[in-house]
Amino acid sequence: MWDDNPHEECGVFGIYAPGEDVARLTFFGLYALQHRGQESAGIAVSDGQTIKTHKAMGLVAQVFDEASLAPLQGHLAIGHTRYSTTGSSRLTNAQPFTLETYLGPLALGHNGNLTNAAELRSDLLKHGAGLTSTSDSEIAMLTLLAGQGPTWSERIDHFMNCAEGAYCLTLLTRDALYAVRDPLGLRPLCLGKLGATGWVVASESCALATIGAEWVREIEPGEALLIDSDGPHTICHLPAPQSALCLFEYIYFARPDSQLQGNVIHQVRMELGRELARESPVEADLVMGIPDSATPAAIGYAQEANIPYTEGLIKNRYIGRTFIQPDDRLRQQGVALKFNPLRSTLEGKRVILVDDSIVRGNTSGPIVKLLREAGAREVHMRVSSPPIRHPCFMGVDMATYPELIAHRLTEEEIGAHVHADSLKYLSYEGLLRATGRDPQSFCGACFTGNYPIPGVGIAARDEIKLFA
Amino acid sequence: MWDDNPHEECGVFGIYAPGEDVARLTFFGLYALQHRGQESAGIAVSDGQTIKTHKAMGLVAQVFDEASLAPLQGHLAIGHTRYSTTGSSRLTNAQPFTLETYLGPLALGHNGNLTNAAELRSDLLKHGAGLTSTSDSEIAMLTLLAGQGPTWSERIDHFMNCAEGAYCLTLLTRDALYAVRDPLGLRPLCLGKLGATGWVVASESCALATIGAEWVREIEPGEALLIDSDGPHTICHLPAPQSALCLFEYIYFARPDSQLQGNVIHQVRMELGRELARESPVEADLVMGIPDSATPAAIGYAQEANIPYTEGLIKNRYIGRTFIQPDDRLRQQGVALKFNPLRSTLEGKRVILVDDSIVRGNTSGPIVKLLREAGAREVHMRVSSPPIRHPCFMGVDMATYPELIAHRLTEEEIGAHVHADSLKYLSYEGLLRATGRDPQSFCGACFTGNYPIPGVGIAARDEIKLFA
Amino acid sequence: MWDDNPHEECGVFGIYAPGEDVARLTFFGLYALQHRGQESAGIAVSDGQTIKTHKAMGLVAQVFDEASLAPLQGHLAIGHTRYSTTGSSRLTNAQPFTLETYLGPLALGHNGNLTNAAELRSDLLKHGAGLTSTSDSEIAMLTLLAGQGPTWSERIDHFMNCAEGAYCLTLLTRDALYAVRDPLGLRPLCLGKLGATGWVVASESCALATIGAEWVREIEPGEALLIDSDGPHTICHLPAPQSALCLFEYIYFARPDSQLQGNVIHQVRMELGRELARESPVEADLVMGIPDSATPAAIGYAQEANIPYTEGLIKNRYIGRTFIQPDDRLRQQGVALKFNPLRSTLEGKRVILVDDSIVRGNTSGPIVKLLREAGAREVHMRVSSPPIRHPCFMGVDMATYPELIAHRLTEEEIGAHVHADSLKYLSYEGLLRATGRDPQSFCGACFTGNYPIPGVGIAARDEIKLFA
Amino acid sequence: MWDDNPHEECGVFGIYAPGEDVARLTFFGLYALQHRGQESAGIAVSDGQTIKTHKAMGLVAQVFDEASLAPLQGHLAIGHTRYSTTGSSRLTNAQPFTLETYLGPLALGHNGNLTNAAELRSDLLKHGAGLTSTSDSEIAMLTLLAGQGPTWSERIDHFMNCAEGAYCLTLLTRDALYAVRDPLGLRPLCLGKLGATGWVVASESCALATIGAEWVREIEPGEALLIDSDGPHTICHLPAPQSALCLFEYIYFARPDSQLQGNVIHQVRMELGRELARESPVEADLVMGIPDSATPAAIGYAQEANIPYTEGLIKNRYIGRTFIQPDDRLRQQGVALKFNPLRSTLEGKRVILVDDSIVRGNTSGPIVKLLREAGAREVHMRVSSPPIRHPCFMGVDMATYPELIAHRLTEEEIGAHVHADSLKYLSYEGLLRATGRDPQSFCGACFTGNYPIPGVGIAARDEIKLFA
Repeated sequence: MWDDNPHEECGVFGIYAPGEDVARLTFFGLYALQHRGQESAGIAVSDGQTIKTHKAMGLVAQVFDEASLAPLQGHLAIGHTRYSTTGSSRLTNAQPFTLETYLGPLALGHNGNLTNAAELRSDLLKHGAGLTSTSDSEIAMLTLLAGQGPTWSERIDHFMNCAEGAYCLTLLTRDALYAVRDPLGLRPLCLGKLGATGWVVASESCALATIGAEWVREIEPGEALLIDSDGPHTICHLPAPQSALCLFEYIYFARPDSQLQGNVIHQVRMELGRELARESPVEADLVMGIPDSATPAAIGYAQEANIPYTEGLIKNRYIGRTFIQPDDRLRQQGVALKFNPLRSTLEGKRVILVDDSIVRGNTSGPIVKLLREAGAREVHMRVSSPPIRHPCFMGVDMATYPELIAHRLTEEEIGAHVHADSLKYLSYEGLLRATGRDPQSFCGACFTGNYPIPGVGIAARDEIKLFA
Repeated sequence: MWDDNPHEECGVFGIYAPGEDVARLTFFGLYALQHRGQESAGIAVSDGQTIKTHKAMGLVAQVFDEASLAPLQGHLAIGHTRYSTTGSSRLTNAQPFTLETYLGPLALGHNGNLTNAAELRSDLLKHGAGLTSTSDSEIAMLTLLAGQGPTWSERIDHFMNCAEGAYCLTLLTRDALYAVRDPLGLRPLCLGKLGATGWVVASESCALATIGAEWVREIEPGEALLIDSDGPHTICHLPAPQSALCLFEYIYFARPDSQLQGNVIHQVRMELGRELARESPVEADLVMGIPDSATPAAIGYAQEANIPYTEGLIKNRYIGRTFIQPDDRLRQQGVALKFNPLRSTLEGKRVILVDDSIVRGNTSGPIVKLLREAGAREVHMRVSSPPIRHPCFMGVDMATYPELIAHRLTEEEIGAHVHADSLKYLSYEGLLRATGRDPQSFCGACFTGNYPIPGVGIAARDEIKLFA
Repeated sequence: MWDDNPHEECGVFGIYAPGEDVARLTFFGLYALQHRGQESAGIAVSDGQTIKTHKAMGLVAQVFDEASLAPLQGHLAIGHTRYSTTGSSRLTNAQPFTLETYLGPLALGHNGNLTNAAELRSDLLKHGAGLTSTSDSEIAMLTLLAGQGPTWSERIDHFMNCAEGAYCLTLLTRDALYAVRDPLGLRPLCLGKLGATGWVVASESCALATIGAEWVREIEPGEALLIDSDGPHTICHLPAPQSALCLFEYIYFARPDSQLQGNVIHQVRMELGRELARESPVEADLVMGIPDSATPAAIGYAQEANIPYTEGLIKNRYIGRTFIQPDDRLRQQGVALKFNPLRSTLEGKRVILVDDSIVRGNTSGPIVKLLREAGAREVHMRVSSPPIRHPCFMGVDMATYPELIAHRLTEEEIGAHVHADSLKYLSYEGLLRATGRDPQSFCGACFTGNYPIPGVGIAARDEIKLFA
Repeated sequence: MWDDNPHEECGVFGIYAPGEDVARLTFFGLYALQHRGQESAGIAVSDGQTIKTHKAMGLVAQVFDEASLAPLQGHLAIGHTRYSTTGSSRLTNAQPFTLETYLGPLALGHNGNLTNAAELRSDLLKHGAGLTSTSDSEIAMLTLLAGQGPTWSERIDHFMNCAEGAYCLTLLTRDALYAVRDPLGLRPLCLGKLGATGWVVASESCALATIGAEWVREIEPGEALLIDSDGPHTICHLPAPQSALCLFEYIYFARPDSQLQGNVIHQVRMELGRELARESPVEADLVMGIPDSATPAAIGYAQEANIPYTEGLIKNRYIGRTFIQPDDRLRQQGVALKFNPLRSTLEGKRVILVDDSIVRGNTSGPIVKLLREAGAREVHMRVSSPPIRHPCFMGVDMATYPELIAHRLTEEEIGAHVHADSLKYLSYEGLLRATGRDPQSFCGACFTGNYPIPGVGIAARDEIKLFA
């Protein structure tokens, strides 16, 4: 009830930097990637001989203290931060996974979703493997182990030829770091340089900036990169006819200061607001965003519309995981536990309320109500992304068909449903325009239903009929 | 190094509401007051017979789960959230304090600082008391116990006559809740109504709003309020010739959605920005604030100056207490672990950077540097409060004389020190003007050196000569 | 159901030994005293400046690890191990208690029971004290604090003049250790020497032997001893017309290798068995004891009766505190969870079963049944102490009048109740004879009803009528 | 230093009992098997659909409370308690292991040691498996998974044909329990009946007795038993030309009340003492054993020699895992931390001291010294097993060749080494005689060097030359 956002599954980080305290740098790298997953965190470090791993449930800052960091000595490391999907919130799903294998110890971190996980899983079980978790990251790992070939490079190549879907993998062996990105490039992964001889890979560039590493380039879709004492070299590059970067990285997932495809995310989000202002203007006294994710779009809208930007809702900065359920009284308070309106600002005003997206539509109504109760005369809702009409099967925890409000209702009906004076979504074209990049280089399946992987989504589409 | 803010000591909350799940409501009340203290949290509940208490180190959401909340059954409760001053971060300092006394069980929560704590402590020890903590809240409690009189009301009266300094107390007995505010009213404390028969007191009104209680009025300086089955009634009211509300509640401490003296904090902070724009205008391309506390003032400045407001720094939302120390490389990164600049926004721009206050001045320089490295052509720093030239002795963890940069340097020197193109503070008059309230009703001792309590600060002033 | 033993309340330990690792020695001292209390353990150490304390729930070995021991640096220390009486199993009751007082920091450990605790408590509350626990050790501490006099010596003297009942106290100040024993000497307390300059006090001599200290003498009933850099000196010695050592120290509490009044406990217990054999012989094939406490008496009985001694029941060595309740099936198994019989030994045999005492009588029947099911032809129960007909009010957790089987039934009726072929208790005279000490020097109130403190027990005796 | 005993690796337990609280029964079964392993404990339960597992480091009573037991609902279960060999004391080694496999979920508990583990491990890695632990139990599990055949029965058969060494396995699937014992029957495993329809398997019969199950028979060497709704049926029975039960089960491992090969262990241990008395009599005043394991042999010796049996050493009942190291002073105290002598018993006496075995010989000397210091005039040591001259490679944590004192020294030299007035071991023939069973049915390799598995021990024997 408190939250109507899609959820990312993970953040990955890897570092090869002799002479540096790689575990500590990984810690701060994960710290910068915390928004990509808050359920569990872990670091695996190699000193050339053995791999040591520490992982636990919780935020990065809760999982690590100096005592747990101290044994993680070495010169190469990977780190992982994981988002919890319901029902699988268990330590056995925490990453990195570390196993002793035929080619020596291996640790793996994964961000993504294998769309043929069920098939790979079935193959593995038939082969005699045993699985400890519900995670498709374990499937990725065991598939790598079961693969043919005398080297990890050959096995990675084999893996990339049988895996389907979204995957950004970091692999750690005794003396090398591997970074692997799926041919569609659904999730981001970039390479940075640390000092004279160090190298870093991370889900987002904000992790590079945080530890003082310099951005070098993105790992290409379909590329597998090996980093060892000879520096980084591409070990395989699958033909990738067309990339399909998830548009939600621009809209919501990535940190505003990260850069993707040469864009700074914050800039694109402001531009989304400007496009929205051009497409769906309305007379009003002030523009506000739902904090914090819609703030850049609201600022952009305000600038374009030349209407004053201000804050209208205060978000409890400490909101987050609580194990205490509200009782009935509090449930009626709804979003008030998370947001409090600023009566002095809203009283008697015509308000443009910018949100970045609507998934289920369960929080928009209460927020509009909150603003009205605080005195807002009109509330015009503007959404800086198109209607979400289709579920994601590539690793984003979004919703099922029947849960998606835009699958069931039209824009106008949604506006009525949330009791807004008007409600407008950004057009898909407007979204693409704001990115300034090739419209063919994205996955916008949740908006369009055109999934980048053949066959994906059909089963789900059939399933939906059962509900109708 | 990561933080140059003054620190509040505590948030207090109390509720008398038969028929409600008072522990749960207290939990969410504390949740809304979390910004006033993040070290420890606790709740004490009475069911008319016994008082049960649960408290622990950590954030409210970490301290409580359904299992620890379940035994806290009753119809009246108090809650407390505490900020850690260095060296005393121990469970024995967590509140509420609960003791069996001559008048039955008593729990106490305290926000403030007794300026004659040393004297009271010495009296207590002479009297035969034993102390478990370094907290002056324990001194307050034991002074209440040692006081004469057959009722708590008389003992509270006695306490108010011998205590000096800042104190907002909530007391819980078997069947009554007391709220006590010092005659200077240094810290805020307000009363709310919950449903037909419930009553709530809290450090800030945001806690009332969060649980759906209605704001009634502030507890008056020098007032002690008793709430029981007959509702609230004032049991004593010390003569309070002149209140002295801490101005930093307006500038930084209180949540923007709280209201004080009839003002909404956010509104006053925007007005601080407007005053600042009028006092110290400068040509520039954009106005930005240091997130999150300076955002309202930056928006106000931008509106008044008619220069676009935008975000220029992204703050790691998950920053907070970490036990991992940065190594040398990261230390050079300085504030980058907390803030990342938006190059796309700043590149080639003349920037007005608004901050709410400067205490030691150790983070301003690195932030200016960060902006310049991200391409800012000019950086004009504007501070929405006057120079802090004197320490606080009334419970704010600020700094000592030699640490306060404005005690040592002039405005111009500070500007040079932080390498800003210009740096201007808001005037004291401007600050008072923005509040719209009687200039005599505040404590501005950290700006003016005029302490509201005779004698306070003299020892410290002498001490400073040793450093000179 | 699993246990029919009286329970001791605590073990105390103190050490003054410059140059030694006093916390570590205290740890091993407590380890040797573990049988006197398994609920919580704690150590307080002084380095001449401050007192540091660590305590927690659990066995000594669970409470301390190297990390928790490391900060406990100093040259004098006290330690405590506590038994849990139902309902008060809380950390706040764990000892040592440590408080900052008018005379500096003070830590206290206590073994005993103040029979006028209610009166002392009432005085303290009237005086303005607040109590955190249900423990009469806190009452002892606060009474010491509230006492008159400029030194601890004078306050101890004052305390001894107003306290009544059983108390062995160890006190730790910045630079001195105090050991205080009540005038009746109800609980044991002895002094030892460690190397050339160290001194140790402990509830039992086994703690001295364990750390390599030499037994010197018992602390006299009514004596208060101060140990500092000048060694031990008696600071006060109350007139103690007649000591009243608890006979259960001989029968059950003390470790067999401890010595009391010049006796080794094991020797006395064997003698109890011999007396029993002389008083109540019976023809049989073997003598066995209920392990482990009745073993010495069984060996003594066997030697005197010239019947082979053997083991007939095996006790689960790991039995102890478990949080898992047996279900109905297991409940019918009764004592089988704790004891398993040796069929090969018992089959067809006439068995003399020696137990050290019977309190409620709830385990004797099931054990007799167990032996019969394992083939014993006859079971003759012999108890190496007299019938317990009166509760203890001096600190032993035994039972109330209605719970004591020997308060309700005669020896013969008890024998029938437990389905023994015969059952005989040792006579009170036989018990006294076995100690070889002045019959007037003991408390045998639980056998005789003659309480050593005037008035104690009368209230309870009246109370019992309510049950009749 | 505190301990000179061989160590068992594990205890296993399994139950199939619809209508019973199988997790609770397993808990109490493990409680009875606690002596076989104190490092970690775990229980896996199936309700016919899923398998749920809880395991952790610590004693059974520490690992489980009602909260952790509550979710373990079902009608069949296995449990495991594990002994820690140095260096592998990690949660990942705790059992049962549970994996999702091609044939559904599988949990496994293992007691034993696969002598061809290295070979099996190498095969598994080549096959593409990844290993998480250093345990050969994981190797057993993965070998079962990788085995051919459409049913567990066929895979168990395959496993038994490729595994070598000691193994008692319990396997849990959705709806069946399997118990597997290696063809040599090195470790014990027995079957019991619980009520009308329940079945239990356990390492030792004491676990059956504890939960009220009736002993039925031993699982035969080389037998694999399946228990499901049709009751128990043997699914394979490897030809087992000659069993090789570990003689140390009789001497030290098994609980005295367990039965093996129709013998009650306690009876055999008393007989070992009697044999020893016949082989090596000596004039003395008393016979004592080192508690607790040597007590039955000491009683047997005393009876045969007609010399009074008594206790001479008191063992700290709470000794056990402590994380606190003794300092130098305490180290000189040696065994005194564990054992205290009874001076009153020993003074001036000629003592026969019975021990069950000598491995490294590091505690015998200090104990002899302890007795002499307590006044013993003569100390004649008698060992109720033969000299241990060879290491164990079948799962007992004993010692390496150079560590074994009887590998380096003769009986006489050992006697001199420990400063005994005389020292005699039981003969191998005497040991066999005391068991009353076929001399060919045992493994006595640690005494004789005749290993029951061809080739085992040769590498180690070669290795030893390096030390010579």
